[in-house]
Amino acid sequence: MKNNAIASRDVDFAKWYTDVVRSAKLADYSSVKGCIVIEPNGYAIWERMQEILDKKFKELGHVNCQMPLLIPENLLKKETELVEGFAPEVAWVTSGGQKELEERLCIRPTSETLFCDYYRDHVKSHRDLPMLYNQWCNVLRWEKETRPFLRSREFLWQEGHTIHATEEEAMKEVDQMMGVYHWFHNEILAIPSIRGRKTDKEKFAGAEYTLTNEALMYNGVALQAGTSHYFGQKFAKAYGVTFTNKENKEEYVYQTSWGTTTRMIGGLIMVHSDDYGLVLPPRIAPKQVVIIPIGDSEKVSTLAQQYQETLRKEGITAFIDNSEKSPGFKFAEAEVQGIPIRIEIGERDLEKGEVTFVRRDTREKCIEKMDIDLVSYIKNLLNTIQNDMYQRALKRRENLTFEAHNLKEMEEILNKQPGFIHAMWCGDVACEEKIKEIKGCKSRCILEDAEKIDDVCVCCGKKAKHVVVWALQY
Amino acid sequence: MKNNAIASRDVDFAKWYTDVVRSAKLADYSSVKGCIVIEPNGYAIWERMQEILDKKFKELGHVNCQMPLLIPENLLKKETELVEGFAPEVAWVTSGGQKELEERLCIRPTSETLFCDYYRDHVKSHRDLPMLYNQWCNVLRWEKETRPFLRSREFLWQEGHTIHATEEEAMKEVDQMMGVYHWFHNEILAIPSIRGRKTDKEKFAGAEYTLTNEALMYNGVALQAGTSHYFGQKFAKAYGVTFTNKENKEEYVYQTSWGTTTRMIGGLIMVHSDDYGLVLPPRIAPKQVVIIPIGDSEKVSTLAQQYQETLRKEGITAFIDNSEKSPGFKFAEAEVQGIPIRIEIGERDLEKGEVTFVRRDTREKCIEKMDIDLVSYIKNLLNTIQNDMYQRALKRRENLTFEAHNLKEMEEILNKQPGFIHAMWCGDVACEEKIKEIKGCKSRCILEDAEKIDDVCVCCGKKAKHVVVWALQY
Repeated sequence: MKNNAIASRDVDFAKWYTDVVRSAKLADYSSVKGCIVIEPNGYAIWERMQEILDKKFKELGHVNCQMPLLIPENLLKKETELVEGFAPEVAWVTSGGQKELEERLCIRPTSETLFCDYYRDHVKSHRDLPMLYNQWCNVLRWEKETRPFLRSREFLWQEGHTIHATEEEAMKEVDQMMGVYHWFHNEILAIPSIRGRKTDKEKFAGAEYTLTNEALMYNGVALQAGTSHYFGQKFAKAYGVTFTNKENKEEYVYQTSWGTTTRMIGGLIMVHSDDYGLVLPPRIAPKQVVIIPIGDSEKVSTLAQQYQETLRKEGITAFIDNSEKSPGFKFAEAEVQGIPIRIEIGERDLEKGEVTFVRRDTREKCIEKMDIDLVSYIKNLLNTIQNDMYQRALKRRENLTFEAHNLKEMEEILNKQPGFIHAMWCGDVACEEKIKEIKGCKSRCILEDAEKIDDVCVCCGKKAKHVVVWALQY
Repeated sequence: MKNNAIASRDVDFAKWYTDVVRSAKLADYSSVKGCIVIEPNGYAIWERMQEILDKKFKELGHVNCQMPLLIPENLLKKETELVEGFAPEVAWVTSGGQKELEERLCIRPTSETLFCDYYRDHVKSHRDLPMLYNQWCNVLRWEKETRPFLRSREFLWQEGHTIHATEEEAMKEVDQMMGVYHWFHNEILAIPSIRGRKTDKEKFAGAEYTLTNEALMYNGVALQAGTSHYFGQKFAKAYGVTFTNKENKEEYVYQTSWGTTTRMIGGLIMVHSDDYGLVLPPRIAPKQVVIIPIGDSEKVSTLAQQYQETLRKEGITAFIDNSEKSPGFKFAEAEVQGIPIRIEIGERDLEKGEVTFVRRDTREKCIEKMDIDLVSYIKNLLNTIQNDMYQRALKRRENLTFEAHNLKEMEEILNKQPGFIHAMWCGDVACEEKIKEIKGCKSRCILEDAEKIDDVCVCCGKKAKHVVVWALQY
């Protein structure tokens, strides 16, 4: 049954999105303009994201730390490009403890400055390198228009900041971490995504280059899904971070940073969810299986208990919904909250020796014998759901991926159905700006090893240098 | 060998403390006055604390969420006592996005206001209750004097905020969570601690009552180690949080909050560490066993590898220190960083079929046969260390626990050797204030079921109501 609290995805995508966020109880607006409350259902997804990414970061030798929330204005200003990039969107603390501050402090929009400040005093020799630090924290950017998860003034993220003795090693790190984000989106979130390099116009303020992972939402609008930056020695020079290299000479360190945010929850919704609410890929779902007993016979509750125990022993997050609500209400709730598998255990079915399994992604019902090999059945089904969700998202993306050979074609595509547009580019920022005039279409990334489509730039007709993916964006 | 970077604990406790923090690389000062950088070794302890507490909270039915960092001034001001309590120590954001704000926003010093604001819109019926929310986050209090972990302007904590349909249930929650903190300190941190109730003067701003867990540091100064507050309907009335009860009548909810912070890391240091650096109880140590190979023979490295694998399979966090440093340097580093067990594997010892095990807490060396039953040996040793550390701390506390029958005795004790002083109290705040004149000595907690020491108040000599623990405090 269609959920009346949720607008149709094909009719009003923007409203559908916020309806899903609210109906699945992922987040709510707060009394603080532009800031959201991440509700338990939303936060549990973030916890799963943290758990999986953090484990991977640590396997690769990274350690976590915590830098201060506040940055003194003077410290922030040392790296010109960074401050110019972020100045329009920072918030300033000007008084504390009932006194005006001598120097105002900004709430971190990102922490390159603080890490540099720390590293400067803690690295001496090449033997201290690399330093592979990461932090999970909140940051603040004073956005004008906000939407839950996609763009809010405060958001949660992880920011990795590493320093290295050589350019080569630092570049390898930038690439490696982009690989982690790509893997995480494809394998865990079931979001097919594209790796590439940002153009100079779109790269991070202060970076030499930025690698990016780009995903396409159901409506054909792109979402940046993880970035990894190479800074070279730029920040090191601005903040004086040097070390004694193997030749016993003083040298500036080579630096990287890389991050992902709670925006990924927005991406998950916009790729997979439907008119019935949230749909979560099993590998990221905080609850993978809900068991709903119908009626209160002992036989029913014994089997429910037995199922729960059997599944939990195998590391599957199963739980019985024993609340006072009606079964119908529980079905609807499990559906809107995107729990991958619902098991319905009813007395009448049990008399026939049967139990009902419902897939959330396809809403298919399968009636099975109650003495089925539960663990392998559920494990298979979870894998099938994960793979099917990825394949559906991939197919959608492929259907919304176009090629344009000139500006007119680009405009026609964007007017008809936005998506990823592959087109050649000469490397000139003027062409990027001209293309942006078409509905705000931006370069998403340069595909570094792609086969060329044309010899000339889609915009100016001069010699093309790169295959670029263009799109409207969140 | 005495670590020269560390002052003597018995000679200069304050310097010893910061020396341990710095030498064990737990935290460093930052360019932001009053704010610290929590370094990887310190943050790893916090992660262990989070892991253990979070699991317990969830087992008891709590869920995590995330409220905004900022609180509009108007919202903060709704509950008078709270705002009066915190006004002197908040920091204000007055501009964002290059504009002056219409209403200034404070950085959360605590989040009762935000939780109330949220609950007001999300609770309707007794069926929605209880709501058992918790968040892990940073808060800011504009302290004048700061010390790493013990008191810093920004700190990390968890704050649980729950609402209930009845007073009885809410009070039970307050008590239950105090039980969790007490268990955590005694069983996990090996810090013997005392449960009690704060006097009205010392309770949380806005609370009806506050339960507290109090620990005594090596130098006889007390540290508050977890508090749990009962608010009754006070906040609910200020913020309008009502529900329809079972009798179908509108009623205000009953509320609690409870929290622990990164201060606990300071407590760990001040109870257990010594002149050689940090000493960590095995149950909280991020790394329980370090294996140090001496020399680079294959036989040594094979055994080291084998030990590491064997221990890890059993869930013991063991790691080989394969860095380029000398064995002596590695021994010293393992010692200063408080790793509970150090295994030294040397070629010459192996020829004799021997391996050396070193306990960090007692610095005892045990030479054992290399084919020892490693897992049970290490498990036993970890348990022994944990228990011995608790017993030593308990003995220290018992030695520093005194009884006073009048003000003169109290003064004599505090002048000689501070500690926990048990003494009777009439319940009058005037007496608390008079006692505070003795070196700032405060009531730590009322012992609710303690046997009375005297009939009269230690201060005024009038009829006594409570046995109170008094102490100097951090």
